[in-house]
Amino acid sequence: MNLFATFQLGEIVDRALREDVGTGDLSAQILAPDLTGQAKIYAKAQGIVAGLAVVEEVFLRVDPLIECRVFWQDGVEVKPGNTVMELEGPLRGILQGERTALNFLQHLSGIATATRRAVELVKGWPAAITDTRKTLPGLRMLQKYAVTMGGGRNHRFGLYDAVMLKDNHLAAAGGVRPAVERARARIGQMVKIEVECESLEQVEEAAACGADVIMLDNMPLRAMRQAVSLVGHRALVEASGGIHEGNLREVAETGVDLISLGSLTHSVQVLDFSLDVGDIKPSALRRWQGEKKDEGHGA
Amino acid sequence: MNLFATFQLGEIVDRALREDVGTGDLSAQILAPDLTGQAKIYAKAQGIVAGLAVVEEVFLRVDPLIECRVFWQDGVEVKPGNTVMELEGPLRGILQGERTALNFLQHLSGIATATRRAVELVKGWPAAITDTRKTLPGLRMLQKYAVTMGGGRNHRFGLYDAVMLKDNHLAAAGGVRPAVERARARIGQMVKIEVECESLEQVEEAAACGADVIMLDNMPLRAMRQAVSLVGHRALVEASGGIHEGNLREVAETGVDLISLGSLTHSVQVLDFSLDVGDIKPSALRRWQGEKKDEGHGA
Amino acid sequence: MNLFATFQLGEIVDRALREDVGTGDLSAQILAPDLTGQAKIYAKAQGIVAGLAVVEEVFLRVDPLIECRVFWQDGVEVKPGNTVMELEGPLRGILQGERTALNFLQHLSGIATATRRAVELVKGWPAAITDTRKTLPGLRMLQKYAVTMGGGRNHRFGLYDAVMLKDNHLAAAGGVRPAVERARARIGQMVKIEVECESLEQVEEAAACGADVIMLDNMPLRAMRQAVSLVGHRALVEASGGIHEGNLREVAETGVDLISLGSLTHSVQVLDFSLDVGDIKPSALRRWQGEKKDEGHGA
Amino acid sequence: MNLFATFQLGEIVDRALREDVGTGDLSAQILAPDLTGQAKIYAKAQGIVAGLAVVEEVFLRVDPLIECRVFWQDGVEVKPGNTVMELEGPLRGILQGERTALNFLQHLSGIATATRRAVELVKGWPAAITDTRKTLPGLRMLQKYAVTMGGGRNHRFGLYDAVMLKDNHLAAAGGVRPAVERARARIGQMVKIEVECESLEQVEEAAACGADVIMLDNMPLRAMRQAVSLVGHRALVEASGGIHEGNLREVAETGVDLISLGSLTHSVQVLDFSLDVGDIKPSALRRWQGEKKDEGHGA
Amino acid sequence: MNLFATFQLGEIVDRALREDVGTGDLSAQILAPDLTGQAKIYAKAQGIVAGLAVVEEVFLRVDPLIECRVFWQDGVEVKPGNTVMELEGPLRGILQGERTALNFLQHLSGIATATRRAVELVKGWPAAITDTRKTLPGLRMLQKYAVTMGGGRNHRFGLYDAVMLKDNHLAAAGGVRPAVERARARIGQMVKIEVECESLEQVEEAAACGADVIMLDNMPLRAMRQAVSLVGHRALVEASGGIHEGNLREVAETGVDLISLGSLTHSVQVLDFSLDVGDIKPSALRRWQGEKKDEGHGA
Amino acid sequence: MNLFATFQLGEIVDRALREDVGTGDLSAQILAPDLTGQAKIYAKAQGIVAGLAVVEEVFLRVDPLIECRVFWQDGVEVKPGNTVMELEGPLRGILQGERTALNFLQHLSGIATATRRAVELVKGWPAAITDTRKTLPGLRMLQKYAVTMGGGRNHRFGLYDAVMLKDNHLAAAGGVRPAVERARARIGQMVKIEVECESLEQVEEAAACGADVIMLDNMPLRAMRQAVSLVGHRALVEASGGIHEGNLREVAETGVDLISLGSLTHSVQVLDFSLDVGDIKPSALRRWQGEKKDEGHGA
Repeated sequence: MNLFATFQLGEIVDRALREDVGTGDLSAQILAPDLTGQAKIYAKAQGIVAGLAVVEEVFLRVDPLIECRVFWQDGVEVKPGNTVMELEGPLRGILQGERTALNFLQHLSGIATATRRAVELVKGWPAAITDTRKTLPGLRMLQKYAVTMGGGRNHRFGLYDAVMLKDNHLAAAGGVRPAVERARARIGQMVKIEVECESLEQVEEAAACGADVIMLDNMPLRAMRQAVSLVGHRALVEASGGIHEGNLREVAETGVDLISLGSLTHSVQVLDFSLDVGDIKPSALRRWQGEKKDEGHGA
Repeated sequence: MNLFATFQLGEIVDRALREDVGTGDLSAQILAPDLTGQAKIYAKAQGIVAGLAVVEEVFLRVDPLIECRVFWQDGVEVKPGNTVMELEGPLRGILQGERTALNFLQHLSGIATATRRAVELVKGWPAAITDTRKTLPGLRMLQKYAVTMGGGRNHRFGLYDAVMLKDNHLAAAGGVRPAVERARARIGQMVKIEVECESLEQVEEAAACGADVIMLDNMPLRAMRQAVSLVGHRALVEASGGIHEGNLREVAETGVDLISLGSLTHSVQVLDFSLDVGDIKPSALRRWQGEKKDEGHGA
Repeated sequence: MNLFATFQLGEIVDRALREDVGTGDLSAQILAPDLTGQAKIYAKAQGIVAGLAVVEEVFLRVDPLIECRVFWQDGVEVKPGNTVMELEGPLRGILQGERTALNFLQHLSGIATATRRAVELVKGWPAAITDTRKTLPGLRMLQKYAVTMGGGRNHRFGLYDAVMLKDNHLAAAGGVRPAVERARARIGQMVKIEVECESLEQVEEAAACGADVIMLDNMPLRAMRQAVSLVGHRALVEASGGIHEGNLREVAETGVDLISLGSLTHSVQVLDFSLDVGDIKPSALRRWQGEKKDEGHGA
Repeated sequence: MNLFATFQLGEIVDRALREDVGTGDLSAQILAPDLTGQAKIYAKAQGIVAGLAVVEEVFLRVDPLIECRVFWQDGVEVKPGNTVMELEGPLRGILQGERTALNFLQHLSGIATATRRAVELVKGWPAAITDTRKTLPGLRMLQKYAVTMGGGRNHRFGLYDAVMLKDNHLAAAGGVRPAVERARARIGQMVKIEVECESLEQVEEAAACGADVIMLDNMPLRAMRQAVSLVGHRALVEASGGIHEGNLREVAETGVDLISLGSLTHSVQVLDFSLDVGDIKPSALRRWQGEKKDEGHGA
Repeated sequence: MNLFATFQLGEIVDRALREDVGTGDLSAQILAPDLTGQAKIYAKAQGIVAGLAVVEEVFLRVDPLIECRVFWQDGVEVKPGNTVMELEGPLRGILQGERTALNFLQHLSGIATATRRAVELVKGWPAAITDTRKTLPGLRMLQKYAVTMGGGRNHRFGLYDAVMLKDNHLAAAGGVRPAVERARARIGQMVKIEVECESLEQVEEAAACGADVIMLDNMPLRAMRQAVSLVGHRALVEASGGIHEGNLREVAETGVDLISLGSLTHSVQVLDFSLDVGDIKPSALRRWQGEKKDEGHGA
Repeated sequence: MNLFATFQLGEIVDRALREDVGTGDLSAQILAPDLTGQAKIYAKAQGIVAGLAVVEEVFLRVDPLIECRVFWQDGVEVKPGNTVMELEGPLRGILQGERTALNFLQHLSGIATATRRAVELVKGWPAAITDTRKTLPGLRMLQKYAVTMGGGRNHRFGLYDAVMLKDNHLAAAGGVRPAVERARARIGQMVKIEVECESLEQVEEAAACGADVIMLDNMPLRAMRQAVSLVGHRALVEASGGIHEGNLREVAETGVDLISLGSLTHSVQVLDFSLDVGDIKPSALRRWQGEKKDEGHGA
């Protein structure tokens, strides 16, 4: 998770906290401001962890006096009861960050877990599992990170980093070859071109004119096998559409290079984690809030 | 969806588009800039629609020349094949907004659909279905809107608009009564107080000292029934924890006023929609882009 | 002041500094960059302090090398001459933050002081002093915080955290009862409902249908007394409109539970504070600015 | 108010609305979404209007379907009962923007009114009334605009657009002359220099070395008169500190060119305005919200 | 310029205007607010135009009442005296946007012009001219757009959309092959890989292991020729480093596929344009500013 | 560079990094995350350094674990080979910040270098070199800072901090004197007024009515000399338009006080710097990223 600048996590986390904390944590007002606590975050189900750095960032933004000790790493399997992180610091801050931290961790770990399951299902076949642009608005960067922690590969991140020529593009351009050639002529040299094909004729045309990746759109298994054979490694072949855990292995057996699954990011089942607080006590910690300053004033 | 200021939708939509469009839609470059098209968005599954105004906002932000005609309304059931909206305008813009628009619509309609299913399951019992703070970061306002379109009620929006006293608050304050009284003394008069209870003793204490809502945290059905009877309408009673479609009706039968379901927003299954483009043709529309100005210059 | 996440103060303070510092402090250019100074912030009038944490945040954002020592706490009375804070660090930074820090401190302490005065005036009566939505744009969160430091209670923070049914709502809904019932049916269970009443008939109707708070809008004292008696603790009763220090005690004597004062936040008289610099001297402090690096370069 | 780009008002207004509307106007939910209304904004006290364009912007941001008809102009006196603006459009939007609009209008008109009063008090004397940097964080641009609508002049907007050499600058630079000369050498040629003087010796030194403006800091009236005579139009002379409506005329009589008043912006008394809604009725207006679409769908 | 969403231009333009307009256009205050004018923007030098849509956006943001008529298109050559755009509307707005509009237009047209010159120089050879990441902070998207208007191709937009393995990557990975293989294993399938080579050995290794593009880093012409021959179309070959107009043709003659020029975006010479105002007159246009409302009020 | 608040640099740097790093540094993924390196930034050409604090801020924002040791200071001349800064820390971060840091440093040092050259050319004459508003959008504050590091003076920063009356203003106001008088009457007392003159008649009129600065717009040398003599130190005289290194000295010889050069900021030639990495090795540094936590988990 150190592949993007550290301030970027901060922005996402601030937005999440602003949404939850708003004009202030009302319930926290019943707690003496100088209470400190210890807490642990532990798994309640089996799966792949993703998002520990986001959790750390949440508590850092809520209160820099909260210390995080991380025992796990993203991409590693966790079993019910395993503690992935311990926290220590001001109790108000721990409770304030709890829900936001868990919302991130459960969602991202859910994605990593589903991805790992898919990856396991196609083991032994050449197919890699890849994601799509069917992500939840505002969360794409983190969701795609979680896919890689589950062992999947990232498809393009958006409209800006690769070309995908779909039916409408092909129709408007007058077919596969003119569309690919026009793209080749106008697009930067570092950009790959994928063509969405609905027939073997299109597959052959795309391979012949040098597409980098050929997507088989909702094709039956038999057509997929023919397409793989037809392409003969001139391009990568991606199966897409209507694929789920039930038919994933059959699709992999066709020999395709890539299988894309929108459900990895659009229909995520959380992986359950919990935060338990223990050992609450008053503290002599120096805090920045006015409430906890010396009272030896006045007279 | 006209309960918040119109600029707020714009912010959420801009963020989503920035994520997808980035430095520009590469594939669009193969399309002549003056092509216009018609498109329809239609359902591919049965469920409750939510988020049509977000879809409109997406296309408005992408290109104000795209016209949207909306045939449906949020909260109304849709069947496979029903067209909920038609679009007409610059083809590049329609393709540019397509994925972002569908990502919102499918997610929010998925929430409304699951909520409606839960609401139907408890029909005939007093229990209302309510959401939680287990939402996806950055999407809470829209997710909670979708819950109401499915017929659910909104729990608090964050830490700032209601008090929820949980086990750690109770422990730190020395019990239910001192916690509630301390909250009553410090919190604004417009704020309701809920107490999370793990025993019937706590339930009685909470009801006796005037809590507005009493949450039964992971209680067995028998204890829920006792709690409802014990409270006797002195407060609303909310069942929470471990509830799913399989046991929802049993929980409702205990007579609780509210059943909260985190899964409505944390583990959303999309409702499938598609966008089909038809009738692509060149257009004489006046556009602001330099590319399409008269060419009678020079010399 | 530790009830909202620490980054939120930072946003407000950055906006204020951007407004004042703009493209740079021109006058500071005549000061050698390595000068350090000590300074104290002291009261020039008697009143209640509020906003010390904002002052600390201002100097932290201007220059993290400025050290703040806080001797007071928000909510405690100060007399002319009392020093509430000492600063030590780079002189340029202290002068740069001075005006912005004092602008916050004087305004917020002015609010706390006026609130405390109102609270003292109604001592011995049940009435609590509460604020309104008549706040200064962009400063509501801090203004409402200052009200609590003066001993007041917070009314709703905005349109989103409580229902207030005013004359236009009642007219459109066809009266008090239908308006309250419609609100009850559509609003989340954690939301309180207040009804603005202009007659005793409305008061009775609001109490009968379960409004949480009843606002007496610009009623004469006699009608207020009747309303309090009529409601008989079925709801909280709030007096509002045309109330000032001159008639505050009379209003309290009617037995209302709450008295709301727009003037607490819309017409604030500052509480005067000053910052004095002493003991300016060159410093060996390590600074991040290029200007103060070693000069042993070149050749 | 057309001296800055139109998007700048939008930013300030959005921030104010976000603060008030938050996750949505709960009370509006009891109103049928298709209700429209007419409303007028009228004065309840005598004074100078400022901020009408801000009010228009508020309603434009809340709902572009609200039409504003403005009958007044900023800087013109209003008497109780005068209607300054009429609104017509969706009722939900009018009620949503009401408080925010009035908060701006009352505050800015309060500033203009107090400024006009001060200007009237010094009529017949050369002194202009000017503001200070003692403004409310986030509102400086609008507050200073309101001062000009009252007939006052603007002092510097911040640390960036003029030099003010205060006691600490003079001390660190070794006196008035070295401070002014150092400033002259380092600051851009379009920047004026003001020197804060506490003695007649400093005044003479400042005038002699070419300061553009000389501030007399908390000087007694007699010393002010001597300073004016001493400077003899070599620079503008500004009186500052401890000046209020009670002694304003006496200060003006000393012949100073400028009198600065922090209270114009730091201790503002609102000018009272009200918004009344009339003539509520259902409407056939085309709206973008899903809720109000045709229902002829389905089956 | 319609390849990214329209709101993105708005953000860049707002930032530029905020920088220039700040708290308001002081000089505009001497102009009667109801003056309107006509203006034309014309070239004062020969070159390629780029950025007309940005100019339109500037005036739209300053004042929506300014009408723009565009006579040219981006990418087309202009000669001294050619008018590219006419404006008509409020004079204050035209003068307020003038400098910002020209700053964009001159810079972007300067880039397009230099690019076109380079493209012409290599005409007849296979080499395409491409840009780099040596851009001016905050302007990359627009600068790269201008390069394409001059006939150049875009290299990667940032660290996120393509892999470039440089000397430090190769050193850390233990050579070209392990670096490429490691990248292939971890990076998404839509991402191309370029290797920066300093020797023919590295070139061969890169071609052999399937790099998509091979960069010849500061190689002499002779080595470039050998590299082109060695690669034999297994990958694209890019010449980079120390290339300028003086040696560009020689580099092209080596047969490389791409020549990257940092100077296209890091050392831009503006293309000169001017804005002339003519025909100033009072106007009856409806404006939103308070200053221009009817005066039939009061009394 | 410590004349503006430290958070302002952060904003500019974040924007630049967001543009370059986007959704993550793909190439960095082939590097083990625990590698650390040392690096130096050194000059490859002779010139004046500007922007070292920006470089420090870049690496601070990318990864706070990177330590910067600065050996130079802004405004001091550098020769090829001189090392201005050393870095030590996580290798991924150093490579991630490299391009952004150099883009700032090269551009700002290019400005300082060209300014210094112009300043040297007019040595011995009274003329100061000054910049203009012809800056690159979003970079004005830094560009103007770089001008001062080269020994130039800053002209106004925007439309908001000084008055410049140009031909259109004069035409609309009916001549120089009415324009200046109107400005004097409406503008704050801390604001200087410059008049753009195209004839000696205008120059005399401007001097006579008290303009602070008189700009000679594209005048021939002879007219400039006459203008200087005519003004006779009643105002500062600025030469502007069509001035370059070739005629700069001749212009200075006319005796003008100021010579403004748009090219200093609109047509910047970079000053070349490079970053070399040395001594890469694994590190035991504690990092916040999940990837580098202990692996002693499980069971």
